[in-house]
Amino acid sequence: MSISKKPYKGCRDLFPELKRAQDFMFDQMKKAAHAFGFEPYDGPMLEEVDLYRAKSGQELINDQIYSFTDRGEREVAIRPEMTPTVARMVAQVHREAPKPIRWYSIPNLMRYERPQRGRLREHWQFNVDLFGPESIYNEIEILQVITHLFNSFGANASHFEILFNNRQFIDFFFSKTLGLDESKSYDLYKLIDRAKKLPKEKFDEQLAAFNLELKNSELFNEYLTLKSIEEFKTFSEKISFPKENWDLSGFLSAGDAAGLSKYLVFDPTIVRGLDYYTGLVFEVFDKHPDNRRALCGGGAYAGLMKIFNEEQLPGVGFGLGDVTLKDFLESHGLLPDFSHGNNVLFLGTEDESCELEVLNLANAIRSRDISVINSPSKLKFKKLLQQASKSGSRFLGIIQKETNKVKIKNLNTNDQNIFELSNIKEIITELNK
Amino acid sequence: MSISKKPYKGCRDLFPELKRAQDFMFDQMKKAAHAFGFEPYDGPMLEEVDLYRAKSGQELINDQIYSFTDRGEREVAIRPEMTPTVARMVAQVHREAPKPIRWYSIPNLMRYERPQRGRLREHWQFNVDLFGPESIYNEIEILQVITHLFNSFGANASHFEILFNNRQFIDFFFSKTLGLDESKSYDLYKLIDRAKKLPKEKFDEQLAAFNLELKNSELFNEYLTLKSIEEFKTFSEKISFPKENWDLSGFLSAGDAAGLSKYLVFDPTIVRGLDYYTGLVFEVFDKHPDNRRALCGGGAYAGLMKIFNEEQLPGVGFGLGDVTLKDFLESHGLLPDFSHGNNVLFLGTEDESCELEVLNLANAIRSRDISVINSPSKLKFKKLLQQASKSGSRFLGIIQKETNKVKIKNLNTNDQNIFELSNIKEIITELNK
Repeated sequence: MSISKKPYKGCRDLFPELKRAQDFMFDQMKKAAHAFGFEPYDGPMLEEVDLYRAKSGQELINDQIYSFTDRGEREVAIRPEMTPTVARMVAQVHREAPKPIRWYSIPNLMRYERPQRGRLREHWQFNVDLFGPESIYNEIEILQVITHLFNSFGANASHFEILFNNRQFIDFFFSKTLGLDESKSYDLYKLIDRAKKLPKEKFDEQLAAFNLELKNSELFNEYLTLKSIEEFKTFSEKISFPKENWDLSGFLSAGDAAGLSKYLVFDPTIVRGLDYYTGLVFEVFDKHPDNRRALCGGGAYAGLMKIFNEEQLPGVGFGLGDVTLKDFLESHGLLPDFSHGNNVLFLGTEDESCELEVLNLANAIRSRDISVINSPSKLKFKKLLQQASKSGSRFLGIIQKETNKVKIKNLNTNDQNIFELSNIKEIITELNK
Repeated sequence: MSISKKPYKGCRDLFPELKRAQDFMFDQMKKAAHAFGFEPYDGPMLEEVDLYRAKSGQELINDQIYSFTDRGEREVAIRPEMTPTVARMVAQVHREAPKPIRWYSIPNLMRYERPQRGRLREHWQFNVDLFGPESIYNEIEILQVITHLFNSFGANASHFEILFNNRQFIDFFFSKTLGLDESKSYDLYKLIDRAKKLPKEKFDEQLAAFNLELKNSELFNEYLTLKSIEEFKTFSEKISFPKENWDLSGFLSAGDAAGLSKYLVFDPTIVRGLDYYTGLVFEVFDKHPDNRRALCGGGAYAGLMKIFNEEQLPGVGFGLGDVTLKDFLESHGLLPDFSHGNNVLFLGTEDESCELEVLNLANAIRSRDISVINSPSKLKFKKLLQQASKSGSRFLGIIQKETNKVKIKNLNTNDQNIFELSNIKEIITELNK
């Protein structure tokens, strides 16, 4: 029987070109996190199922999780997201750690879903979280990490925007202004969350079922039409949303000082599902007409420590998947070409019995931190040139047995120079050009 | 109910100090691979169980693998090792790819085992493989990647050695010299593999069961006493081991030219179990008296493409785990201190309502690729100093509202200088000192 060469459904074989692109994205993520002093962490790829059950309820467990029972009768799951793990880890150290705690990670995650564009069963996710006393500055900082990252790829306000809203605001609006009880508020959240996907008629029909008073129904419709930050501000003043719940003006001036104004857009339909968020909620949106979708989402939360019987520690964070990010970069032409490696010297020979000289010189050059692909067995010039180019090398070196010399050809300029094998210093200077 | 804060058995929570150490090791691995032109790849964390069954037989499947049945009735497993995945991937592309193919990866792997020093259920493993026509130069290159990596940590021949042997040689010795049939050869392999672990008496007893002729028994005992490369060479000449099977002299001169001589030690008991190796086999051994153990192992193989019905493509490779490597570096004092991060500026203020100035300046500095942790809310000097030190920052900046200036204190030298907030250029120069 022959075994299949294909990867498991919904997973990727990352051949070198793809892996180089992924490593490039990972490097930019790490740089963006380090620019703000975030520290790296990672956790196990397996967690006990109870952890996810406690955080997300039974639904996620049943539908989306890879879970099984281990030989010790533990019910375990492959991590489908990083938040429960980071909460578990922070719960171990938050009492001693200086606040705020700034952490990031780039774990591989598995979710059981039907593979489609931008969604695979396995992906890597950049997770950034800031834990500490509630503060608009923490919210601003998390958004800055995102813009810093996107800017590092060359993306700007013409490529993406940050749609935001605030759960404190919606909660206040629903309960104090519209006078809804908890259960009706919950249902209205659900409706808003689907607002962009439902046809207008369907939406109106479902809204009607809430039997809002005329005045409230008008207010709610007014809310749904809010487009700019100015309109949002005016509306929040109109309903007397208190500064204590969330300092909207403070948030906006801080966003201004932090260079975020050109990205921030208020969106009344952003609520981030029925998730655990309790403050700011946001989604980074692609502005490309063919790719109008959320690239990443996040927000502020307060209750993650509860399941560990630990005192509350608020946080703000987001997750950005590598598949989504790559689609974004590709659709805007922002992903560099990774079809070739990035090697300095391809070293070979056309002569018999020159193998040891090749090994020797390659070794000496590598010890000066210059990469060398060596090809000790003799090859024809044409073949050497072909292999050197395909490998993405900048120089081709050919050792000439008789003269004890090496000819070094710059493959970009076609310049070539000849050096004594013993003259390592000059060879290094040439290769550093 | 309160949820456990502990990680799943045999897995690690990598808090920032540990993750920084791991990232440092990963970076050195990547650099070592790139120094030789190896290209990165990765595969899925799940594979179909048939892949492992085809390569390793039923034993590994039953004992060591995390496997389960997915919702599509596929029998899948979390990857316990990378070789089957890389073989599957190479089988897809080897016909078109220029040879040799040089690939490396650093995947996370899960094995079901009893956690103990140097062995956990989850670890990361540096996998390096070179696929192409059989050649002693490929074997030498793989060993060079290892020494290059270990040298990059400051390890030298006083810290580690490379014990080697060759399966071609053992096969020839067993079948042609000792005249053993396949089944007896197999049993003798098993005995040798356990030679170091068995007490002398036990070993002799089991050896006696082979009923070797006196002459052969003496030869076998002579084989077991071979200590140096010179002795190995003399012995291989004595039994007329043919150069066509493996060019021992060529291998040794190439190793010399490549700077490997000081690491290479012949060891008659190295056979790498009953694994798939067909040529060179080796183990990198820690020389530390408290940690005399194999750090990594590998060798040359020929048959990995068979299970995919593809023509043979020989290879050489090795795997090095992050837990083992870390133990090695720590026991030799070669692991740098990672207790703190590596941030440049910690920026805060002692004054009220200076938050926007903090955000503004931090943003301007970060855009020049300098990392800044900002702390917009006012704090006492002592607190600022404390937080700056704990965060591993090199400078503490304090914005003075009244004067519109920032005082920058070098935390290593205690020098301090005052700059106009608008004078970004001078601030950057100071921070780059």
